Amino acid sequence: MSYIPPSLEKVIDQFSKFPGIGKKTAQRLGIHVLKSKKEDIFLFAQSLIDVKNKIKTCERCHNISESSPCELCVDPRRDSSLLCVVEDSSDIMLIEKTGYRGLYHVLGGTLSPLDGIGPDHIYIDDLIDKSSNFKEVIISTNASIDGDATALYIQQILSDKDIKISRLARGLPVGSQLEYIDEATLTNAIENRTEFND
Amino acid sequence: MSYIPPSLEKVIDQFSKFPGIGKKTAQRLGIHVLKSKKEDIFLFAQSLIDVKNKIKTCERCHNISESSPCELCVDPRRDSSLLCVVEDSSDIMLIEKTGYRGLYHVLGGTLSPLDGIGPDHIYIDDLIDKSSNFKEVIISTNASIDGDATALYIQQILSDKDIKISRLARGLPVGSQLEYIDEATLTNAIENRTEFND
Repeated sequence: MSYIPPSLEKVIDQFSKFPGIGKKTAQRLGIHVLKSKKEDIFLFAQSLIDVKNKIKTCERCHNISESSPCELCVDPRRDSSLLCVVEDSSDIMLIEKTGYRGLYHVLGGTLSPLDGIGPDHIYIDDLIDKSSNFKEVIISTNASIDGDATALYIQQILSDKDIKISRLARGLPVGSQLEYIDEATLTNAIENRTEFND
Repeated sequence: MSYIPPSLEKVIDQFSKFPGIGKKTAQRLGIHVLKSKKEDIFLFAQSLIDVKNKIKTCERCHNISESSPCELCVDPRRDSSLLCVVEDSSDIMLIEKTGYRGLYHVLGGTLSPLDGIGPDHIYIDDLIDKSSNFKEVIISTNASIDGDATALYIQQILSDKDIKISRLARGLPVGSQLEYIDEATLTNAIENRTEFND
């Protein structure tokens, strides 16, 4: 395809490596780069380099941050008796939106014996060490097989400590119709039914 | 949102300026940058800078290229009696796929009197100058109001020259069903009906 300049083809190729970006979208993004102002693209390139140079992992909670310990770990306004355990840093962004204001612990993955990922491959050891400092540990792994297995594992190794261990509720997503809910979710929703508070 | 490191937020913000990239996709792309290898992201940043530094506009056809005149204009294997007039460089990529092997002229837009874009704002002058060198000029503007108006304008100013002027056929898209075709297209398809060749 000699009619696409090599440098443009390279950018298109790089864009298509991003998740959810197909060949056509990558081409559109490449054309956009072509049409954008030089300064804007240089700024964009610089910001990409900055991310890789500045962002590290917090030594306490393993969240991504430009400082270690991160802003969340050192914020005195946060409730230091609550610990929310998540699989990934990106989950923190979602949980923050719910209004939760305790601390976090990022596992950096889930246990997955079939893929050879055991407790030594994710941040579980230091979770055990620090867990005694908290009143409650909320295990917020995904509701997937690996997420559930990981939650169960953590629950078991923390069970002999004097801390409350909870996990995210299972039930109907807000706005859903029973008709479209799978059996497992509905079973959970009935088992975990909540009383009306008068 | 202090839980997103500023440098990451900047990248997400930059991604969301691309066409078709919303806030959520931008966030996913930002996370991907975070998780990618440093070398890969540096390569990506460099390729963006390269595009802006290397690519220029061909002095003859106004196509984008790393050289001027571009590869298409100087390729001796191409049919130099045919000229295909397109709105944008990106249209060339599409027309190349059809097997067309003549030369191109990129207008760099369409006439659009309402937006104040007249013949002086797009590359029409030099198209008139060079048109005499060709046997046929194929006007391949979009089948939009502006594209049609531009095609008509070009057809009129070239009409006194001894060259064949054509434009892309209007009719049924391949694989379409009459039921879903709009009236204007169907009218075109009937008017421009073609005879079966025995």
